[in-house]
Amino acid sequence: MVTIIHSVTIVTLDENDSVFDGYVVIKDGELDKLKEGKPAEQILDAAEEVIDGKGKWLLPGLINTHGHIGSSFLRGAGDDMPLLEWLQTVMWPNEKTFDEDIVRSAASLAMVEMIKSGTTTFLDMYHLYMDKIAELVAESHMRAVLCRGMIGNCPPDEQMEKLLEAVQLHKNFHGYNNGKVTVALSPHAPYTCPPEFLEKVVEQALLNQMWIHIHVAETKEEVLRHEQQYGIRPVEHLQQLGLFRVPCMIAHGVHVNEEEMQILADNHVYVSHNPKSNLKLGSGIAPLTAMWEKGINVALGTDSTASNNTLDLFEELRFAALIHKGVLEDPTATTASAVLKMATVAGAKALQLNSTGALVKGNQADFIMLNPKKAHLSPWNISRVASHLVYAAKSSDVTDVFVQGRPLMKNGELQYLDEEKIIFEANMYLH
Amino acid sequence: MVTIIHSVTIVTLDENDSVFDGYVVIKDGELDKLKEGKPAEQILDAAEEVIDGKGKWLLPGLINTHGHIGSSFLRGAGDDMPLLEWLQTVMWPNEKTFDEDIVRSAASLAMVEMIKSGTTTFLDMYHLYMDKIAELVAESHMRAVLCRGMIGNCPPDEQMEKLLEAVQLHKNFHGYNNGKVTVALSPHAPYTCPPEFLEKVVEQALLNQMWIHIHVAETKEEVLRHEQQYGIRPVEHLQQLGLFRVPCMIAHGVHVNEEEMQILADNHVYVSHNPKSNLKLGSGIAPLTAMWEKGINVALGTDSTASNNTLDLFEELRFAALIHKGVLEDPTATTASAVLKMATVAGAKALQLNSTGALVKGNQADFIMLNPKKAHLSPWNISRVASHLVYAAKSSDVTDVFVQGRPLMKNGELQYLDEEKIIFEANMYLH
Repeated sequence: MVTIIHSVTIVTLDENDSVFDGYVVIKDGELDKLKEGKPAEQILDAAEEVIDGKGKWLLPGLINTHGHIGSSFLRGAGDDMPLLEWLQTVMWPNEKTFDEDIVRSAASLAMVEMIKSGTTTFLDMYHLYMDKIAELVAESHMRAVLCRGMIGNCPPDEQMEKLLEAVQLHKNFHGYNNGKVTVALSPHAPYTCPPEFLEKVVEQALLNQMWIHIHVAETKEEVLRHEQQYGIRPVEHLQQLGLFRVPCMIAHGVHVNEEEMQILADNHVYVSHNPKSNLKLGSGIAPLTAMWEKGINVALGTDSTASNNTLDLFEELRFAALIHKGVLEDPTATTASAVLKMATVAGAKALQLNSTGALVKGNQADFIMLNPKKAHLSPWNISRVASHLVYAAKSSDVTDVFVQGRPLMKNGELQYLDEEKIIFEANMYLH
Repeated sequence: MVTIIHSVTIVTLDENDSVFDGYVVIKDGELDKLKEGKPAEQILDAAEEVIDGKGKWLLPGLINTHGHIGSSFLRGAGDDMPLLEWLQTVMWPNEKTFDEDIVRSAASLAMVEMIKSGTTTFLDMYHLYMDKIAELVAESHMRAVLCRGMIGNCPPDEQMEKLLEAVQLHKNFHGYNNGKVTVALSPHAPYTCPPEFLEKVVEQALLNQMWIHIHVAETKEEVLRHEQQYGIRPVEHLQQLGLFRVPCMIAHGVHVNEEEMQILADNHVYVSHNPKSNLKLGSGIAPLTAMWEKGINVALGTDSTASNNTLDLFEELRFAALIHKGVLEDPTATTASAVLKMATVAGAKALQLNSTGALVKGNQADFIMLNPKKAHLSPWNISRVASHLVYAAKSSDVTDVFVQGRPLMKNGELQYLDEEKIIFEANMYLH
């Protein structure tokens, strides 16, 4: 199957950061050609499908490296509250009532929101009905990394039950749906997983060739308590426990110090930066530029709607680009191009995905298109596209979303998920 | 003329922060009734126009208290650069080439963006063709405060020319277009206006009953230089010069200290908080919560597209709500309701407008409507509306915009501005 999309402005986010007017040839789900200008007649003739891009911008699909889609119905359920009060009065009591129907509906809602806002790939860490989620994700045709989140503060038999469930998820779904679903291991956090449990997780990761995703140093308090309890900081501790012997991505890393950043860099540990969630919960602001200086690969994530309250990576791009300039009082602290790469190329690397991220020949055809005929994107020319994507575009400008060459959204219409029904069912939750 | 809009969820932002399902009666441009439930037959019969709100959210129009619409074409012209380099290589050389056509087109583009993103009222401080802008604004039927921005670092005759132009603008346009256009005086900043000039401005303000808008303490450096030059900090200096003898709103106030905040509070000086612009230029983060503690009325503004890069108050709401929680590591630092009031009630006060802001009987019918049937606004009920407006809504959810009871946008279609033509003309600027 060959598809051509012509008359588009292509933002490759490859090593040359190329932006040009041209066309894309997609062959069997992969990017076959990315060329300037108009396609010749014989190229058009060889295509089963020719799409007129009508001057839209075409760029890599965005990659959301941290979230919990099963809890999407808690959007706006409790804001502006102290963290512990929020957990105790909002999150935990609500999550206790979640049955399979609720989690499935919530996950569907999250996928609608993500596709509509230009996300092609996401990581989900959750503890409920992950096998059902895997099926739902496959039906949506999104690319996803799924992890059965494990809180280890429980008796050993419960720990083992969770771990076996997580490994079973890998056995059943790693490489599922033509490789679009992969599975990683996800112990929740150092403060919710005792050292012996983390060692067991590493053992299983090595045995099953799984990588590990874990929350680390989200709040100052959790780091302090860790030092009090173990006499060592969380990142140092994780290294001691052997976690970094397998590929690893930590979420947040708001309160990592210089030495911990060096450990992350030395061990090629990836970081999922979730600026909006960290701000909203009052956790703080992760040292993005210091991580960059150490050579750490930092990706972007939204966290869940319970603490963000959107799954919109265009918003996350904007916050990531702006807050560090402000806090450091340095407008050169971030650039549009560097931030775009966090949400694409760096995201792919962090999720251990080798052939998505940048738009280059041979990569999977995971991309999105935006309609630039908007006041807030005017005026524009080639030299302003990257800037507009980071500082001016809204996710509502996204019109088309492709994963593996397959359209998940065409001109704003979802192709596999029933948007109206999913929104209706979500609202039934509160009525 | 009586219009009824029924089947809406009304967010009044009045003193009781009421949110309820009901209807609005608009009579001759004013809010006549805001009631729960369905309107009775005799009420419907008395209306010339009945609009089915179809479950939309109806709230006060947003108020943008600081901007420069004439420079809108510089969106994305230079980002991620040190401030001085940006001014010297991007802003100043470009602005020198602006003719009347460019400024008119740029202002039109800005108004399209503002109406589409739910802004009903804005302040514009600019130095070029303000009389032409006043006519354009009247044609758009937006509510606006216009100020001829004055840089006072020039010979006395030039200073006087600018000041006379500013006063003339007031004579010609204050109260124009059925009161929707008003005019204030706007010396640019303490660092660009010598003390003697500021005294002349105060004189004219008193003489003509005009209020004053001025940039203050945007950057740390400008405050340091002010102290070096005058031996006093800018806010103290402005007080000495008599500026606060007239109603006053300062823009930014990023680097005001405790004493200066006390002066602002004691003199009922309003502050226009522009978080995104301050972040993007690396200026820093204004002490919003400290200002609130002093009792200062803080409003919201976008600044221009050259430093934001949007004129989208929904984005500004989100940044204002989130960054202070993050910087202070306190999720209770801001609340959705307090931030919504900055963009409405506080904005109206700061712009010396007595009858807009909250939705209460007798106020001008300046309001907007949003379509909540979106994944990112689901699930929702009455108790989550304020949260969703601040933490989840996008300006693209705005479908209808009314000023003085007149629709400027209906179901996404602008009624007075030719969106397509204005976007086309904006893009001609770069081609």
